[in-house]
Amino acid sequence: MKIQMWREILDPYVLTVDELVVKFNHLIEEYRNMGAYSPIEQVHGRVKTISSILEKAQKKEIPLKDIEDKIEDIAGIRIICQFVEDIQKVVEIINKRTDMEIKSEKDYIKNMKSSGYRSYHLIIYYSVQTLEGTKKVQAEIQIRTLAMNFWATIEHSLQYKYKQNMPEHIKGRLSKAADAIIALDQEMSSVRGEIMDAQNSFKIKANM
Amino acid sequence: MKIQMWREILDPYVLTVDELVVKFNHLIEEYRNMGAYSPIEQVHGRVKTISSILEKAQKKEIPLKDIEDKIEDIAGIRIICQFVEDIQKVVEIINKRTDMEIKSEKDYIKNMKSSGYRSYHLIIYYSVQTLEGTKKVQAEIQIRTLAMNFWATIEHSLQYKYKQNMPEHIKGRLSKAADAIIALDQEMSSVRGEIMDAQNSFKIKANM
Amino acid sequence: MKIQMWREILDPYVLTVDELVVKFNHLIEEYRNMGAYSPIEQVHGRVKTISSILEKAQKKEIPLKDIEDKIEDIAGIRIICQFVEDIQKVVEIINKRTDMEIKSEKDYIKNMKSSGYRSYHLIIYYSVQTLEGTKKVQAEIQIRTLAMNFWATIEHSLQYKYKQNMPEHIKGRLSKAADAIIALDQEMSSVRGEIMDAQNSFKIKANM
Amino acid sequence: MKIQMWREILDPYVLTVDELVVKFNHLIEEYRNMGAYSPIEQVHGRVKTISSILEKAQKKEIPLKDIEDKIEDIAGIRIICQFVEDIQKVVEIINKRTDMEIKSEKDYIKNMKSSGYRSYHLIIYYSVQTLEGTKKVQAEIQIRTLAMNFWATIEHSLQYKYKQNMPEHIKGRLSKAADAIIALDQEMSSVRGEIMDAQNSFKIKANM
Repeated sequence: MKIQMWREILDPYVLTVDELVVKFNHLIEEYRNMGAYSPIEQVHGRVKTISSILEKAQKKEIPLKDIEDKIEDIAGIRIICQFVEDIQKVVEIINKRTDMEIKSEKDYIKNMKSSGYRSYHLIIYYSVQTLEGTKKVQAEIQIRTLAMNFWATIEHSLQYKYKQNMPEHIKGRLSKAADAIIALDQEMSSVRGEIMDAQNSFKIKANM
Repeated sequence: MKIQMWREILDPYVLTVDELVVKFNHLIEEYRNMGAYSPIEQVHGRVKTISSILEKAQKKEIPLKDIEDKIEDIAGIRIICQFVEDIQKVVEIINKRTDMEIKSEKDYIKNMKSSGYRSYHLIIYYSVQTLEGTKKVQAEIQIRTLAMNFWATIEHSLQYKYKQNMPEHIKGRLSKAADAIIALDQEMSSVRGEIMDAQNSFKIKANM
Repeated sequence: MKIQMWREILDPYVLTVDELVVKFNHLIEEYRNMGAYSPIEQVHGRVKTISSILEKAQKKEIPLKDIEDKIEDIAGIRIICQFVEDIQKVVEIINKRTDMEIKSEKDYIKNMKSSGYRSYHLIIYYSVQTLEGTKKVQAEIQIRTLAMNFWATIEHSLQYKYKQNMPEHIKGRLSKAADAIIALDQEMSSVRGEIMDAQNSFKIKANM
Repeated sequence: MKIQMWREILDPYVLTVDELVVKFNHLIEEYRNMGAYSPIEQVHGRVKTISSILEKAQKKEIPLKDIEDKIEDIAGIRIICQFVEDIQKVVEIINKRTDMEIKSEKDYIKNMKSSGYRSYHLIIYYSVQTLEGTKKVQAEIQIRTLAMNFWATIEHSLQYKYKQNMPEHIKGRLSKAADAIIALDQEMSSVRGEIMDAQNSFKIKANM
């Protein structure tokens, strides 16, 4: 397929990512303006590269014409939270919005992957306006704590290096690191109430 | 009114400007991806400052509770075009979109202001999602050529300096400059077809 | 040459453009903080594309090993001014800086090109820090008014379309547009003193 | 002191932060262009707020005229690394640069603060060009792992809430979290060689 065609296909996904990043970043701003604790700490977005799309299509035996339908993460948003409890709060916020519709959810926090991977995944439908009219696309939203994200970044690099053949001793170390992450997230959760109070107290002061 | 209150009031307008800037900038991208001439050259956005809002409210005797209703340009978008003909094209594009609704239009190009000011103004309704749900706000979109924008910038500075008392000789010079702008825009229009062809030829090349 | 090699060659030029854009944009900020009129209105930067570099090398018969030496505009900065008089002021500011050194100057305003092109060009030397140490590179700085820039943008598109064979009637129209630009810049210059006063009066107010 | 005066004082620090963020971000780019592992993961910058400066001046009994001299962190840069070992590498890179000079260093990683705080701090001298000529300012660079940064962010919020009176049970939890962070950083260090190999292998592939 020509590069020109790919650009036209990916164009609405680029727009989707740009709009969603603006919208989720603004939520952080909205909490800050109220002087309140924000369950969202950072927002990142990316559009899948052409080579990654082709690789996934080949691996999952998806014909080119079904790519937009079957590959749900061409547009990808990552929302980073401070605390495990914030993740559910973010899911609720997304659930209430009328500008996106949840298609499916996967809770890899309750059901950790065997690798140690933890995250909350949503597939949403989102509509953008193009020169040819309204287009409804899919996007994946991954919600994680800072600690989970840290682990996932490392694991992704190692996966890239070893493909399917990660040595047992590396797997073991990753697994130990995943345990340290869980311990860390638990300690953090134990002070979450204190942090939220700290941030809310701004509001009270500001309104006096 | 407290600064905290103002922040909460202006928050949806900040979001509106951010979303609209992303959306109109993306149109430029969409044309470029097709290898076609874009009627939009630049997009700028701003939220009116608190002091400008208060000044306008005072001048027009608008009570504070009616500000959001009566001051239509709290959120402001400026779209800059290369050619006069592009302005109408942009109005048509906005007209077709389903994510904004035109409330009113003013054509200061056909009906130039006595000062020499020329621009096409739209007031639109636009909906944003806040933590309290959907909020429908107003925004002003000003559409101008580069040359008109140049003149308007200069005139704005002079207006600021002299308020209602601009000396006659300055008015005269501004008026002469406005004539030069019209001559320039007309010369430019006479090569518009050539420019559009030049840019469309990219597309044809890219698709061969 | 491999893409990897090109990236390593162009890398210091990307850094040069990024640093210079920050620095010149900050000058605007510095004037604004003093409440004074800024001779710089906008700053743009770009690194020449690999295909443009190769095209220029071929046309001027420059061997690949001499590219960095002989092609002086791999890093390009464009500074846009409101008034013709501001251009000389910007040249003086650059001249006084100790972080860049002027190699050569071309005044296409006094000596307009036969096409009608007007601009002030500087070639500077600028040092950046890379992982391999200090690297001294060249950069081109083009200084123009908004009006000159407008004309140059249009002319560039037409040049691209017609290469060396621009029809006479198009040339004639461009030339007429160039005249309108000069008339406009002259009218503008006649109100420059007023504009500068207007902007300086902020400062006086702020300091009282 | 008037807001206008503060703006003029802080202006060179704003420029310093902007330039340093561009420069350190470019290092990440430079490593990526070589297909090599980057010891820098993220760069953040901020200029201290006027109220924070005044608070610090009062607490440390610094007269206003000595603020620029005695408050070393008016310009602040934070460099985030993936692994503890990267921190020393970043210090070496800074040490070799000719555009900044290290004034002093504090190693809170070898010598953890009693609170559990760990980070490597540098104070540097850095020169910027202003309209009045060259100005040499100080800036603080904090270098930390992602995990250390995570802890420091949480601790900062709690410090803000409790000032000098943090309850013992909160201190205990923070201390436990600091232990989890150290364990995590150690597990991560044990796979650092693997990650670096993974990222370097891009380069080898790209050059073949």
